[in-house]
Order: sequence, then C-alpha cells, then structure tokens
Amino acid sequence: MTIQRLFIANRGEIAVRIIRAAQALGIHTIQAHSEADADMLAVKLADEAVLIGPAPAKDSYLNIAAILNAAKDTGADAIHPGYGFLSESPTFVRAVEDAGLIFVGPSADTIERMGDKVAARQAAEAAGVPVVPGSKGRVDTVAEAVAIAEEIGFPVMIKAAAGGGGRGIRVATTAQELKSLAPQAKAEAEAAFGDGGLYVERAILSPRHIEVQILGDGENAVHCFERECSLQRRRQKVWEEAGADCLDEQTCAALCASAVALAKAVNYRGAGTLEYLYDAASNEFFFIEMNTRIQVEHPVTEMITGVDLVAEMIKVCAGAKLSMTQDQITRSGHSIEVRLCAEDPFMDFMPWPGQVKSLKIPAGEGVRFDHFLSEGYQIPPFYDSLLGKVIVHAETREAAIDKLVVALTELDIDGTKTTAPLHLALAADPDVRAGAFHTQWLEPWLEAGNLTAKGDAA
Amino acid sequence: MTIQRLFIANRGEIAVRIIRAAQALGIHTIQAHSEADADMLAVKLADEAVLIGPAPAKDSYLNIAAILNAAKDTGADAIHPGYGFLSESPTFVRAVEDAGLIFVGPSADTIERMGDKVAARQAAEAAGVPVVPGSKGRVDTVAEAVAIAEEIGFPVMIKAAAGGGGRGIRVATTAQELKSLAPQAKAEAEAAFGDGGLYVERAILSPRHIEVQILGDGENAVHCFERECSLQRRRQKVWEEAGADCLDEQTCAALCASAVALAKAVNYRGAGTLEYLYDAASNEFFFIEMNTRIQVEHPVTEMITGVDLVAEMIKVCAGAKLSMTQDQITRSGHSIEVRLCAEDPFMDFMPWPGQVKSLKIPAGEGVRFDHFLSEGYQIPPFYDSLLGKVIVHAETREAAIDKLVVALTELDIDGTKTTAPLHLALAADPDVRAGAFHTQWLEPWLEAGNLTAKGDAA
Repeated sequence: MTIQRLFIANRGEIAVRIIRAAQALGIHTIQAHSEADADMLAVKLADEAVLIGPAPAKDSYLNIAAILNAAKDTGADAIHPGYGFLSESPTFVRAVEDAGLIFVGPSADTIERMGDKVAARQAAEAAGVPVVPGSKGRVDTVAEAVAIAEEIGFPVMIKAAAGGGGRGIRVATTAQELKSLAPQAKAEAEAAFGDGGLYVERAILSPRHIEVQILGDGENAVHCFERECSLQRRRQKVWEEAGADCLDEQTCAALCASAVALAKAVNYRGAGTLEYLYDAASNEFFFIEMNTRIQVEHPVTEMITGVDLVAEMIKVCAGAKLSMTQDQITRSGHSIEVRLCAEDPFMDFMPWPGQVKSLKIPAGEGVRFDHFLSEGYQIPPFYDSLLGKVIVHAETREAAIDKLVVALTELDIDGTKTTAPLHLALAADPDVRAGAFHTQWLEPWLEAGNLTAKGDAA
Repeated sequence: MTIQRLFIANRGEIAVRIIRAAQALGIHTIQAHSEADADMLAVKLADEAVLIGPAPAKDSYLNIAAILNAAKDTGADAIHPGYGFLSESPTFVRAVEDAGLIFVGPSADTIERMGDKVAARQAAEAAGVPVVPGSKGRVDTVAEAVAIAEEIGFPVMIKAAAGGGGRGIRVATTAQELKSLAPQAKAEAEAAFGDGGLYVERAILSPRHIEVQILGDGENAVHCFERECSLQRRRQKVWEEAGADCLDEQTCAALCASAVALAKAVNYRGAGTLEYLYDAASNEFFFIEMNTRIQVEHPVTEMITGVDLVAEMIKVCAGAKLSMTQDQITRSGHSIEVRLCAEDPFMDFMPWPGQVKSLKIPAGEGVRFDHFLSEGYQIPPFYDSLLGKVIVHAETREAAIDKLVVALTELDIDGTKTTAPLHLALAADPDVRAGAFHTQWLEPWLEAGNLTAKGDAA
C-alpha cells in the first residue's frame, strides 16, 4: 500500500504544509478548493487543483459527497483531512474507506472512541493514564459527597449530575466548606433539573494546558515530547510552546509515557495529541481529551525534535511502520509559535479580512513562517481568520521570545490588520517572560487593558 | 564589556543574518552601505543605516577609513565584518581595536597567523593536527625523494621547490614510477627556475573538502561538527552539507577533536572553520587552512545542531564565555545549503543582475531561505552574485535532497536568472544522490553537458 496521489480536503496554511510534505515524498498533490479559494497559495503550489463547491464550508470543505466525487474524479488514492472541517468525522472516514481510498489519520473506530468523552476517559483509565478524579456516578447525599471528596482530594467541584452549562457549580476547598455548599448545590440542582443528584470531581483552579504529541503506526507508538498551550482566548490557543518549562524532568517523562501507553492501547495510527490539565500546585497531570489529527501547533514540536510530523503521518497511514524508535527522538532548545489572525486586536479581535497589498515575511536562523498568503491575495471572509503562524526556535525560552520579537517586527502584511500587536505585547509582558501563566490568565489580562495601541495601531 | 551598538561592515544576505541575530540579543544595529546598496533589505531591517562610499568595494566595503569614520560617527561600540571584504584583514582589525571598538572575530594576531600558510601549518602540526605529509624542505636527489615518498606514502606529488603555479608537477603512484619521473621533474625545474630542487608531498587525488565549525571564547573552544563542501566550481562552493555522511563515526570524532585542539592552541575567539582534505581511499584527513570568520555555509551547521553561530560569536567577542559545553552540542538529521546566485547557468554562469519583479520564497518545515531580496530591488552589478541560500533540513540526506527539490521548485524570482536550475540538476543526479563526489567532480560534470535547459531555461 502506497500513496501516489494525495487529495487535500482542507485549505489555508495547513493545505500548504501538507502539499510541501507530500511533494517531498514524491507524491502527486491534488488540492480541493471552494469557489472563494481559487486564488489561494495551496492551489498554486499543488500539482493539481479541483473545485469542490461554493464558498460556504458546508457546501465545500464539509461536503462529504463533493469531496469524494472530486477525489475519485482526479484519481486520488488517499485523502488528507488537515485539521478542523471533516478531520475528526467518523462518518467521513468511513465514506473515504468505503470509496477504497486511504484516510491519512486513524481509523473511524479510533476517532469515534476518542471523540466520545466517556469512552475516551475509560480508555485512558484502562491504560493507566490519570484523569481528573471524580465520583463514578451520581452522588445523592452530602455525606457521600464528603467521603468522595476526601478520597480524591480538595479542592473539589460539585455540580448537578443532570445539568450542564455550569449551572450549580461550586468549589469547596475543605470538607467543612463542602458540607455547607453541598446542600445549596443539591437544592439548586433539584430546582433547576428536578433532580438533586450531584457530581463531585477534583477542581483544578488555574490549570495549565499541556499536551503530548504522539505518532503511531497502528501497532507501535512514540511521543515527540510535550507542548505548553495555556495562553488561550475563548478556548482558542494563541501562543504555543515546546517544551513545557514548568514541568520537572520526572513529571515530563511520566506525562509522555502515559500518552504513549494510551496511543498504544487504542492502536493509534497517524499523528495525534493527548491534551492534559496540569495542576502546578500539586504537580499532577490529568488527561482530558485526544485530538485525532495534526494540530495547528505541531511546528513547535518539529522545531525541537527535527521530526517532520506531517511526512511521518502520511507514511504510516500508507502502511509503513514508524520510521523512528523512541530513543531516536531527541529534543533540543525551545520553540514558540504564535497564531497570526486577520483580526483587529484593538477592536475585540474583530475579523478584518483584507487584500494583501504587500508582504514582507520574516526568515533566518530559527525562524519559520507557515502561511498561505501571496501578494494581491484577497483574504476570504468565509473561514476562520488564521493567516499563518510565526514559529521560532532558540537555545532557551528567553532567547526564543527575543527572536520572536525580531520576527514579528520584521513581518509586514500591508492590507489587513493582524494579531501581531497582541503577540508583541505578550512577548513584553513580565509574566509571559517568566512563564507564569495558566489557561485563565490571558482573558483577564486582556480585560485589564494590557493590550494598548502604542503606535502599533496602524 | 558588552556590545550595545553593532556596526555591520558588510552587505547582502550576511548583513541581514547579522542584523537579525543582533536584534534578538537586544543590540542596536547600524548597517553600512555603499551608494549602490541604499535600497537593500539590510538597510531596511537595521535600526540605523549609514552611507560609507561609492559603489566600488574599494571605496566602501574595503575602505577602512570610511568604515571607521562611519562607525565612530554613529556611536558604534563594535564592528561585525561578515565574510569576505575586510573580515580577514589584520590591518583592519588593528585599526578597529585602535579606535577602541570591539571586532567581532578573533584577534589580529590569530588572523595573521592563520592567514599565513606556513605558520598555520606549523600551528596545526604543533597541535597534533594532521597536515598533508611532505618533505620538510627542498629535496636535491632522486634517492632522497624516493626515501621521503616511501615514508609519507604513495601516491606522491613532486614539484619544483622554487616554482609555483603548477609547473613541473608530477604524480607518482609507486617508487618505480617516481624514479623515472623525478629526473624529468628535476630537469624541468632546472630549466624553468635555474634550480633543480624538488618538493615532495602526498598526492590526494580526488579529495573531498570537509570542514569543521568551531566556536571559541579565547580560552575554551568547542566544535559544532563537520560540513561536506566538495561540490565546487572554480574553487567556489556551490552546495554544502552537514554532516559529512562519507565519514565513519570514529574518523568524524577524530576530525572534530583535531579542530578543537587547534582552536584551543591558538586561543581562538569567535566562529571559525578549519578546512581539511579528506582522502576516502586511505580514510585520512589533512588540515589545509583556517577561515577566521563566519562562513557562507554556516546555516547547515545551525540546522543540525540548533546552535545560533552568529549570536554566539557576537556574545563571545563581547567578552562572554561560551554558552555551551561540548556535550551540550548534539546533532540531529541532515542539512543541505545551495548558493543561489544571479547567474545564468546555461551561459557559463554569466552574471545576470536584474530587477526583482516578484518574489515567491519557499518556507515550511525544515526550510530556510537566507537572502537579501525584496520586490522591486535592483540587484547591483558591483559585487559577488550571491542572492541567497536555500537551506533544508530533514531526518536523512535523501529526505533533505527531496525537500530541497520542493523548495527550489517553489522559489520564484521574476526578473533575474539564477543558479536554481544547476541545483535542481544536481539534486537529480545519481552520483549526488549517492553522495559519490569529490572536489574534482563538478567541473567535468558541467563540461560533459549534464546541465541542460529542459524547460528550465526561462
């Protein structure tokens, strides 16, 4: 089984990334595109391009029938889904396989299993991977809640077993506090849902988002170390690093080993990421979910390991064994990626698609800019606003931040606003410099007015 | 001693490289430029720029007085010489130091010593570094020549001790052959120079050019592994690699250790390169010379080690100790650089400076393009034709060549001819693919018509 003609069912910077990797493997590339994307860089770089539908994603990049027809018409033997869109749709994967094509990713069953929160948690527990400790099922009495909380450790969060959306959630830091809060929560749950059952779990108050990159060939699996992605706005990562300097060596090794154990347990094939919450106070990590696809932030891992993750996922999905053993994967230095979006950071990140009048891109030692822009390109308003990613690598985290500032200063995209000023402000912030942040850090920082125009408003 | 304001006494891509490194170190950069270079990228990126003279290099980049005046006028506290121009001029270094400025490079004495072939050879021998074995001085009889040849090993080269320029050179592969060739050589030397004295040395018939990157702080020194630079045309490197896959591990370790020994022996400060001939037949290496500056091909070393050589040379020349120990310098994967010149490779590499009408540059995982171009830029005809360097990194040499092809195909500079077609032809050549070449390989390959237009002529 080999791949000779790869169909790319995605757009933007990740399509460019996939084309380059596939071409270097000697694979003919076929780029799908919507009517709005006829002029994008991926269309120019691919060996062949094919229209799959109108601008709205539901009619093109989310249209399974249109994608499969185009793939068959162009003689593709494999489909790369990129990230987002259909990349984690078991229905799509089954349709691809039923059409006799290779899906560059894990099996539909793996995607389905890891896409189900309960099943993924069970798989993690079975593989010995720590998950956020909590009650096995509903808790009906305050005494029972206290007993469970004492077993899993404080602080704990109690919430309505029947509810959702955060209603009735309370955090207790001691048994005493729990005893006074639980009856209120119970009463509120009864009032809201007609069901006073509670759910108790460990509260991780200011967690870091740490994730582990893994690669699998369906049999064997390896990790490519961890990433730190705690700087988030509206649950979207804006700045990612590899490695996570907050972890000590032993914790890091345990974290990465746990990811490999789970990847092996589910016979993972392709590139995947296990996401964890890390509780700095207790030095514990807890698995939360798995992303069964390549991620936006994969380049930081490539920068510290030298592993070409996209090439490797294509090879293993074409039937090859992993081309490296765990001890051949070493890391060196520190890498940071920032997501450059066509948004105005001074106007609440309002999307600002424009026409690229001129483009000056940063380059040089330890600098990588993955993007899909070209001069004259009109950024379409139909899709997410990611224009590209500025990625830097240096010997230390401090030097990487310094290099990031030079690269962002050098970058000049005339014709649209971008989030570059946010990243420059973050790079200058003492907490960011010190690595002292968590997932709840960025939004209050923005609300406190730390991002000010200061000559960057142009 | 620190550097706060760095004056860059060079141009082109290396000026851009130095600016980026210095800015990331928080250093204010001052770019010198000739009248012809007012519009170059380095002038745009530097914090400040200053005119040093008219277009001819002798009036600007080689004009010591003009450079020192401009450096003093702009309040510089250090000068980076780049490569070429004044970078290896002891006179310049002494003038810089006399003006109370830091020279980013070794001391004038070190440059002078290593710039003198005889003194450099003596320094190498004293440090235990192998040099090409030869007679200590002139050899007056055939019997003496044979005795020396048997000691140093065949094949040997005999040449007139008094002569130069290759006259009277003969190669003998056995004592028998030497006995018949030596009298002819002696007679020819007598006829040409009135002096029949001969010089005998080991002939390395198809050597590889291998070099070792070193860093020193004046006291301690480390190596950053070796490079393979055998693909040369008219003694100019056109394609460079790190590492040298032709070397076995033991030879490589001995080679790198010898470079460190010599660097330490001469109290080397800054980045430097020791060049060697490698004789594949006997698995021996011989020191030939040292370049006491940063080299064009330094990025391939950065790609496999993650060490920022330019940043490190700035730091040590500002008085810091080396920021790393030898065992912290590890290597991963393989890197290739090709030199992109504004020349027509189908017209005997005729210089072809033009105006850059549009510029599409390669990027992505493992791809780096160090250049000094921008749209609308008129390439001046006054200097060497190097436009930039396409550098790739991958897990294996084979994968690096494949990635190079993708990057070169993606590169598009409208408005000038470049040597990209040469590099694409080399990348497709079976000998290059197999790594089966030496310093005498490329010119016959070109003469044999291996570079053909095939649709690349545009």
